[in-house]
Amino acid sequence: MADKVGVVDTMFARVDMYPFVVQAFQDVGWEPEIVRRTVPGVKDMPVEALDLLEKEGCAIVLTLGMGGGEPVDYTCVHEACVGIQGVMLKTGKHVIDVIVHRNEVKDDLEFYKLCKNRAYKHAVNAYWLLSKPEELTKRAGTGERQGLDNEGQIAVKK
Amino acid sequence: MADKVGVVDTMFARVDMYPFVVQAFQDVGWEPEIVRRTVPGVKDMPVEALDLLEKEGCAIVLTLGMGGGEPVDYTCVHEACVGIQGVMLKTGKHVIDVIVHRNEVKDDLEFYKLCKNRAYKHAVNAYWLLSKPEELTKRAGTGERQGLDNEGQIAVKK
Amino acid sequence: MADKVGVVDTMFARVDMYPFVVQAFQDVGWEPEIVRRTVPGVKDMPVEALDLLEKEGCAIVLTLGMGGGEPVDYTCVHEACVGIQGVMLKTGKHVIDVIVHRNEVKDDLEFYKLCKNRAYKHAVNAYWLLSKPEELTKRAGTGERQGLDNEGQIAVKK
Amino acid sequence: MADKVGVVDTMFARVDMYPFVVQAFQDVGWEPEIVRRTVPGVKDMPVEALDLLEKEGCAIVLTLGMGGGEPVDYTCVHEACVGIQGVMLKTGKHVIDVIVHRNEVKDDLEFYKLCKNRAYKHAVNAYWLLSKPEELTKRAGTGERQGLDNEGQIAVKK
Amino acid sequence: MADKVGVVDTMFARVDMYPFVVQAFQDVGWEPEIVRRTVPGVKDMPVEALDLLEKEGCAIVLTLGMGGGEPVDYTCVHEACVGIQGVMLKTGKHVIDVIVHRNEVKDDLEFYKLCKNRAYKHAVNAYWLLSKPEELTKRAGTGERQGLDNEGQIAVKK
Repeated sequence: MADKVGVVDTMFARVDMYPFVVQAFQDVGWEPEIVRRTVPGVKDMPVEALDLLEKEGCAIVLTLGMGGGEPVDYTCVHEACVGIQGVMLKTGKHVIDVIVHRNEVKDDLEFYKLCKNRAYKHAVNAYWLLSKPEELTKRAGTGERQGLDNEGQIAVKK
Repeated sequence: MADKVGVVDTMFARVDMYPFVVQAFQDVGWEPEIVRRTVPGVKDMPVEALDLLEKEGCAIVLTLGMGGGEPVDYTCVHEACVGIQGVMLKTGKHVIDVIVHRNEVKDDLEFYKLCKNRAYKHAVNAYWLLSKPEELTKRAGTGERQGLDNEGQIAVKK
Repeated sequence: MADKVGVVDTMFARVDMYPFVVQAFQDVGWEPEIVRRTVPGVKDMPVEALDLLEKEGCAIVLTLGMGGGEPVDYTCVHEACVGIQGVMLKTGKHVIDVIVHRNEVKDDLEFYKLCKNRAYKHAVNAYWLLSKPEELTKRAGTGERQGLDNEGQIAVKK
Repeated sequence: MADKVGVVDTMFARVDMYPFVVQAFQDVGWEPEIVRRTVPGVKDMPVEALDLLEKEGCAIVLTLGMGGGEPVDYTCVHEACVGIQGVMLKTGKHVIDVIVHRNEVKDDLEFYKLCKNRAYKHAVNAYWLLSKPEELTKRAGTGERQGLDNEGQIAVKK
Repeated sequence: MADKVGVVDTMFARVDMYPFVVQAFQDVGWEPEIVRRTVPGVKDMPVEALDLLEKEGCAIVLTLGMGGGEPVDYTCVHEACVGIQGVMLKTGKHVIDVIVHRNEVKDDLEFYKLCKNRAYKHAVNAYWLLSKPEELTKRAGTGERQGLDNEGQIAVKK
């Protein structure tokens, strides 16, 4: 039986990140059943993720949220992230909380690329968490980033 | 049987946002049973929403809260929002947390319009969440806003 | 049978706010059984409120807490308020969280008046929540304040 | 049967506050069984307090924690305090959360005195909470402080 | 039967801290069964720690996380730490939350040493918490640090 994966996205976000998730699953050769739910904004994501994990039987959920540039937007994202921690503690399952902030980069094109890269890479992470945990461990402590360039590992020669 | 919707508002808010919710329901042709509860301020909203969801059998709740302009007001709103996340995790149902901050706009008229637009649009969102989720997905990643102008989608031509 | 109301106050506060609560109950003609508990500071209030609601059978609790003027004091108050949200979610009952901050006003006399007004008005709110919810709804969105002057409603003529 | 009291302290703190607690218990003529647990730092205190309350059967716990002067230290203390609120909500028992911040005073001697006074006075508070609640109520709203000078009560002559 | 210890680390961290934990266990002569799990970033650590404690039967977990230098990174770490408090409250077991922030020191070599020292010392702490609690109590209030130099105890001669 195929894995069942939930994706929660928002109307608030200015980039449609869902296709990047689908693309990533295809690229790694994964064909899970995907259940997509769209909510107004980030604060509405946790309970939708809960529903996907508890009632829809999803094995993992990706939440795709965007924060605006105002201070209150950062607070909203924080509240959503605290809610998502609660969802994970209640269900014992992973929710990969993909957050982009409009102010991380300057122009719209850069922002589009940031969204694409972050959503795509975290979709791969979801696959690894469920099916190939050794891929994650192989990269432990290597400064892997989603959305921005990898920072690389700091090591000391022996 | 008609849907049952809860609305929690406050004495603290300077605009009566309840009528905008009622208007929105009428405009979309939705006739749910509405249970309204008024509390002193935002921190009193979560437990009232819990009551509406657990004991009154509401399918969804809209909380209409206003934050003042002082730093402690932002903290109070944050505490209310964390509480509301807790309510959603406990009940598995949506609470659409409509918050307006007095400092988002300059004058009273603008503020009135902000409140009206945000409460109205989130009432529509409540309807979509319960009955027409495809309307939300259709707008995924399009920069939809409540209260302020939509920001639009950032897309790249292929 | 008379209602049972809990009041939690602190040694830390510089104004004894309990008498204002008692006065308010008398003025509105309410004669509940009052159970008073004093704790060291605000962080000790939530668990005491929990005890009053779960073990003493109080229908509602008023917590009367004061924050000092240092940044850590604001953090302590925030932790107390988050705890009180938890108490409300666990019990399904209201805890009216009356907080005064020493820095809200300048001199001691003004502060005394602030404490008196806020505690008194919230005691009335407790009465309304339990017995006269229509009084709260009547004032929805009217900018009602406790401690400071009401701000009034912003409305637009039709 | 003697009361059972838990004390959690840390290696991180720069003052050994445990003896002040023992001294306070002796001075008030209280001879509870004391169970002491030392953890690395403040974030490790809540779960240890939980263990003392749930498994060791302590009636109350004192946590003796110190925050360093860096911003991240304040965040760590905040996380510990939120955890301790959770412990109290879960157990229904008091955890007196004694926190000292290195930056509250300037030199080491002053800091030592601050630690001594705060731990000592809160140990007395623990005794009062369990056995003499009337001592707390007697001091309600009097500006009682632990570690720093009492601030006194603000009252208005009638 | 050997103790079972969980270690959660991340791809995001720029130093591979796992070997320092293994080294520490060897140096103190402890041979627990170690279960290692790697996740993308700090926000994914709590639920993985929960799984190790609840389903894998680990007696304790070490989480090895790194925060970047941007403000949002501090918020992410905070969310992870709040989640870890939740894990401890739910399981009643310790999760030693080893966090390094890139900005604590200036250059890469210093950062590597910081990571090594902090992970190593906290691995020893995990051993002490499980098997030699008297080693912790012996150092109570002595200003013991992990990652940075010990600060020493402040004491007053009698």
